[in-house]
Amino acid sequence: MGNRIGFIGLGIMGQPMALRLIEAGHELAVFNRTPEKAKPLEAAGARVAATPADAAHDADFVISIVSDSAAMEEVALGKQGALETIRKGAIFIDSSTISPTVSRRLACHAAGKGASFLDAPVTGSKHGAEKGELTFMIGGDREAFDRGLPLLRTLGKKHIYCGAHGAGLSAKLAQNTIQSTMVEIFCEGFVLAAKAGVRPETMFEIIQSSMARAALTDFKAPFIFKGDFTPYFPLKWMHKDLTLAMEAAYAQGVPMPAAAAVKEVYAAAKAQGKGDLDYAAVVTFLEELAKVRVRTTEAAAEG
Amino acid sequence: MGNRIGFIGLGIMGQPMALRLIEAGHELAVFNRTPEKAKPLEAAGARVAATPADAAHDADFVISIVSDSAAMEEVALGKQGALETIRKGAIFIDSSTISPTVSRRLACHAAGKGASFLDAPVTGSKHGAEKGELTFMIGGDREAFDRGLPLLRTLGKKHIYCGAHGAGLSAKLAQNTIQSTMVEIFCEGFVLAAKAGVRPETMFEIIQSSMARAALTDFKAPFIFKGDFTPYFPLKWMHKDLTLAMEAAYAQGVPMPAAAAVKEVYAAAKAQGKGDLDYAAVVTFLEELAKVRVRTTEAAAEG
Amino acid sequence: MGNRIGFIGLGIMGQPMALRLIEAGHELAVFNRTPEKAKPLEAAGARVAATPADAAHDADFVISIVSDSAAMEEVALGKQGALETIRKGAIFIDSSTISPTVSRRLACHAAGKGASFLDAPVTGSKHGAEKGELTFMIGGDREAFDRGLPLLRTLGKKHIYCGAHGAGLSAKLAQNTIQSTMVEIFCEGFVLAAKAGVRPETMFEIIQSSMARAALTDFKAPFIFKGDFTPYFPLKWMHKDLTLAMEAAYAQGVPMPAAAAVKEVYAAAKAQGKGDLDYAAVVTFLEELAKVRVRTTEAAAEG
Amino acid sequence: MGNRIGFIGLGIMGQPMALRLIEAGHELAVFNRTPEKAKPLEAAGARVAATPADAAHDADFVISIVSDSAAMEEVALGKQGALETIRKGAIFIDSSTISPTVSRRLACHAAGKGASFLDAPVTGSKHGAEKGELTFMIGGDREAFDRGLPLLRTLGKKHIYCGAHGAGLSAKLAQNTIQSTMVEIFCEGFVLAAKAGVRPETMFEIIQSSMARAALTDFKAPFIFKGDFTPYFPLKWMHKDLTLAMEAAYAQGVPMPAAAAVKEVYAAAKAQGKGDLDYAAVVTFLEELAKVRVRTTEAAAEG
Repeated sequence: MGNRIGFIGLGIMGQPMALRLIEAGHELAVFNRTPEKAKPLEAAGARVAATPADAAHDADFVISIVSDSAAMEEVALGKQGALETIRKGAIFIDSSTISPTVSRRLACHAAGKGASFLDAPVTGSKHGAEKGELTFMIGGDREAFDRGLPLLRTLGKKHIYCGAHGAGLSAKLAQNTIQSTMVEIFCEGFVLAAKAGVRPETMFEIIQSSMARAALTDFKAPFIFKGDFTPYFPLKWMHKDLTLAMEAAYAQGVPMPAAAAVKEVYAAAKAQGKGDLDYAAVVTFLEELAKVRVRTTEAAAEG
Repeated sequence: MGNRIGFIGLGIMGQPMALRLIEAGHELAVFNRTPEKAKPLEAAGARVAATPADAAHDADFVISIVSDSAAMEEVALGKQGALETIRKGAIFIDSSTISPTVSRRLACHAAGKGASFLDAPVTGSKHGAEKGELTFMIGGDREAFDRGLPLLRTLGKKHIYCGAHGAGLSAKLAQNTIQSTMVEIFCEGFVLAAKAGVRPETMFEIIQSSMARAALTDFKAPFIFKGDFTPYFPLKWMHKDLTLAMEAAYAQGVPMPAAAAVKEVYAAAKAQGKGDLDYAAVVTFLEELAKVRVRTTEAAAEG
Repeated sequence: MGNRIGFIGLGIMGQPMALRLIEAGHELAVFNRTPEKAKPLEAAGARVAATPADAAHDADFVISIVSDSAAMEEVALGKQGALETIRKGAIFIDSSTISPTVSRRLACHAAGKGASFLDAPVTGSKHGAEKGELTFMIGGDREAFDRGLPLLRTLGKKHIYCGAHGAGLSAKLAQNTIQSTMVEIFCEGFVLAAKAGVRPETMFEIIQSSMARAALTDFKAPFIFKGDFTPYFPLKWMHKDLTLAMEAAYAQGVPMPAAAAVKEVYAAAKAQGKGDLDYAAVVTFLEELAKVRVRTTEAAAEG
Repeated sequence: MGNRIGFIGLGIMGQPMALRLIEAGHELAVFNRTPEKAKPLEAAGARVAATPADAAHDADFVISIVSDSAAMEEVALGKQGALETIRKGAIFIDSSTISPTVSRRLACHAAGKGASFLDAPVTGSKHGAEKGELTFMIGGDREAFDRGLPLLRTLGKKHIYCGAHGAGLSAKLAQNTIQSTMVEIFCEGFVLAAKAGVRPETMFEIIQSSMARAALTDFKAPFIFKGDFTPYFPLKWMHKDLTLAMEAAYAQGVPMPAAAAVKEVYAAAKAQGKGDLDYAAVVTFLEELAKVRVRTTEAAAEG
């Protein structure tokens, strides 16, 4: 009753996703570049595949979630890549956040094998992956989306069909462009205000009583005000996603002047060694230049 | 029991503010550069002053709300300016959105006359001015703020003390920097997504189920999706406020790279003749370049 | 006495380069995606290869000059790619302007085959290719550079060894970043001046008598002043090179805020359909917004 | 036979300019905010004026060169300002680099007194001021320009009539926008190349054999390569001029996206305390982020 699934990529997100699939009764062949990460899955009943091709060769579904475009090209198109052996009629669901252009090329190769390909990036943390509460943004053929949906319900609580190949990734990148800029401009504004003597709690009161109030800054502000940059989403990943967004913008012929400027601010913060902190740490790049801190009195007292 | 108030600037906001003050029992001497705008106030019982100096000479409070820094310098410091005649102990409340640097200079001149000066820019529309529901962000001496508060309660429902001279304006400019950028990046993201075939309603569903959801884009999105740019806040004013924010950033030594980029996008949209539209019309600048429309099917059907 | 050379890519630059090599007595096997472009080479004595692999299999040198990273990956690493058959000890010289990251990956594959790889992008026009007057910027092993130099002397008059793999491309991209920005900012400045009533010939006199005088703007200015944008180097290629520069900057951890902004100006001009004009046509994007022309009286009289 | 001249502003440039005028036989009344700077002029025969109004009241020409728009407004329009007492038919020549908008306002006030006003900013160092070798860019009435020219020949070797009021300043600001960007993008390019292993001397060889070669970078490069940032033109002044250029761009309706980005890079460098170094020190902001130095081996050996 379960499906045979080739699962590629057992990182922070992939590991709990694969476990949920096993628990739901599917038969998994798992592959990860560093094989020791496959141990817990093997313990849970998965077969450890020697190569992506091995993981894919008898699968109904191939699911992948790896770190970047190059890694994805390697596991899909490289020697012993999953697209070497994928079966006719199988569905390849890639949840990596990679270049839409690269993803469209993979879809093209899959089609050449008679298989379907969906770009299906996710939002949601490791915790969301464990609970099956991810949000999927999905591009590709509608029919493949419909066939994949029952399986994806095991992993997420929301599955948004975005359009043709690359549309899921484009939506994800648009979203992260918006979020990264919202946080960055919040920081620019608060630094300007702080430098003029406006206390962060006062400025926050103003924002919260205005239309600029947003769930994102509701959430980030207290961390910014405490200077706590424990990574929910690391700055270097946000910088990577902005870079992918700009590549997509180039490919699509879309000028994105604000995103381009914001990307370089994250680039500067990353260059300063803040890449592993939460992306809200971009505030410290601005603070250090302006020689002012966006810290609340309360937070300062605590810290 | 009422105060004697010199009121300078009878535009879209000033007119209803002055009327509320008269209705609340204060004695007004009003001045406007184009005198015909004083007519309705005269009918309501105000004295029409010949010059700002005339409006100010026997006032307990001087309130001003004019279009820009140059106009404010003219009515305050020019020949027959209000600061020529302001009385010792009087409070000058300026609700114009102008340069914090200019405002601090005016505060300095006022102090030389023994008067207090508050920068007190507002948010809220003409409707808010009529209903007395404006939000004031106020900079200057705390004691002057406390003395001015009863009067300002007639005009607004929220009065936030921000700090020393210029702090009210700095807070206002920080807020508008944040808002203008939120709207602009929303548009960049939606244009990118649309170009990749993601329908605006789908992209909006993604944003609305994410942390990027904000009151501002809840409000603006339907207008953007219909292409309805009836001005709530004209694009040229947002561009002006971004310019003031950048001037303040220069004066304070705060780099603002994203705001700088966003300002030039509004500059381009204004240069294209969109200055009198709502600032959300910035989307059309991006749409025309990318040759795609961020219009929902429903909106397109209606239109 | 001549070498056996596999030559891949017979476009505007590749065609005359290949011809010069034949004329210099080398034995060529040529490949081009659209085979008809190989006709003139065949007439001149070249063997027409069916695939890149066929062109490379018995070559001492493989030379390629194709349009972008994807095309280069295809001819080098694709099925029947040149790196399938390249001989041990052969030297692969790629004169395409592509991503340094991709180029480094190709160098790595070549090394796996016992072959050397040089990134060797060129500056100089079609005319320079015909006359053997190109400038080569070269990255890779010094020893391969030295071995390749006699051959490259047939094609260029200047061969600059830049360093390890990717260094040639990085130098080329840095140069084009500088050139594209010089032209763009020249245009911003002239538009600002023109709008204030300064005639372009007057502004040019100022620049020419200042340290800002540059060979590039000496050359471009007369065309700008006439509105003649016959492509010496098409705007879309400059936009491509800026995009590659930003990708390299990402890979190297280098923030490039000005280049990022300039790239989006070229993106906007390209989006307006100016991609096939000379990159100096970026001026028209700015002119149209500012509603002013940077045209000299003389040029206007002529036109 | 000499003229009576009111001279306002005795800083680095003003001092030697005033001295040359005295030596040329003119009768000077000099004013400076800090009076001790007037001593050398008094010793040379100038009358020390108590106020700008005093300096101007019997002058044929008023010449000013002060630090910024606010200072200029003070000496011209403030209490005891020069425009209080300027004579009908006199010519007010302002060589300060200030906002064109402010300058136009001063011209308007001067006209109200029957006097002429020229904006006449200069390029050239203290040395040029001593030798009378400055370049003047001049805006205002042609007739006033013609009348002022004989006098200005004492101070400069080139006098370029740019057009109506504000045109001289606009030309100067356009020029500095171009120069500051040329230097900044040179630095971005060299940092990118250096990070990829291209030695600065190699990259410089490439630039120097290309059309990007410019007098400005011929001059600046050796200092950059040595890390010698002795100020020829301090970074904070370049940042000021970029800020004035952006204000002029706002006033004229000219989008300047690259200048806006470059301004924020200088803002960041200034915020880091580099404002008093030469503006080429902007390279160190980029170097520190990218963790690489654009220093030649030779320079490193020397240093």
